[in-house]
Amino acid sequence: MEQWKKLKEELVYDDWRKVIKKSYQLPDGKTYIYDIIGNNDYVTVVAFTKDRKAILTKQFRPGPELILTSFPEGYIDEGETPQETALRELKEETGFVSDNIRLIQAFRRAYNNEKRYVLMALDCEKKFEPKGDDTEFIETELMSFEEFRAYLRQPSESGFTNTDAAYLAIDLLGWL
Amino acid sequence: MEQWKKLKEELVYDDWRKVIKKSYQLPDGKTYIYDIIGNNDYVTVVAFTKDRKAILTKQFRPGPELILTSFPEGYIDEGETPQETALRELKEETGFVSDNIRLIQAFRRAYNNEKRYVLMALDCEKKFEPKGDDTEFIETELMSFEEFRAYLRQPSESGFTNTDAAYLAIDLLGWL
Repeated sequence: MEQWKKLKEELVYDDWRKVIKKSYQLPDGKTYIYDIIGNNDYVTVVAFTKDRKAILTKQFRPGPELILTSFPEGYIDEGETPQETALRELKEETGFVSDNIRLIQAFRRAYNNEKRYVLMALDCEKKFEPKGDDTEFIETELMSFEEFRAYLRQPSESGFTNTDAAYLAIDLLGWL
Repeated sequence: MEQWKKLKEELVYDDWRKVIKKSYQLPDGKTYIYDIIGNNDYVTVVAFTKDRKAILTKQFRPGPELILTSFPEGYIDEGETPQETALRELKEETGFVSDNIRLIQAFRRAYNNEKRYVLMALDCEKKFEPKGDDTEFIETELMSFEEFRAYLRQPSESGFTNTDAAYLAIDLLGWL
């Protein structure tokens, strides 16, 4: 399967998010233009305490206008490695630290240019009070592993946004 | 935890994708404006044949400019149920049909207004030739369950975009 030929790329919306119009020559020779969402790379940190409690965050989210649950997440600052971002976000959002952290995957999306790094932080300990940035109003929730395992597979809309990262980490850990 | 008060909502970019500026009064009284991506609701269909082969699609994707792998996916047309969309996309993209399909979850994202429905289609049989729309150039790949299970947990960037849906379905099926 071949890559398509890119004919043109133009930034058409440039604010907190960006929209990039990319024109491609399709395999049948026709031209088609896509709106691609420009977004910075970010990390998701699947974090567990020494006694396997999941360290989750709850926040109001303006997209769906609902309170959603996730692991600590955040954008990679200039010059940071994904691991540095993960430790910073874990500390800022929850007050937890870990010296057992590693990168486990990177995910891509069809119509976004972002790269999302998934890391796993184990044996986390609470050493600080959470201190999000000026626009973050985050509640930390610790969930026992058994409860978290059931939460992942519940059949209704749960408002959990990191199902991919969570399953991948606990699969790699042999905890499934 | 309380919902935030929405002060204003304005469509600021309106083409194939949309951007909506939403102004909120934050819990500390300050005002903050978010760029929310407007996107239609869509489905992901975790599809397996009678002999548990995963029915995957490969396409060039203009966001990351890479060939990515996913289950059949597509936007919900006006008046369709998620199940109708799932059966239509499964047939169009891969030529497979199923009479054993069900909705298993719906996922939300923090800064998008879309709702993504995840369905699981079992005992799929190939009855047609794939016939994507004018801009779709899709290759179907059948992957044995054992290979798919290993593919999910591989440690490098795999280009697979439905890790969440895949794990959830095989967990609910008791196949983990």
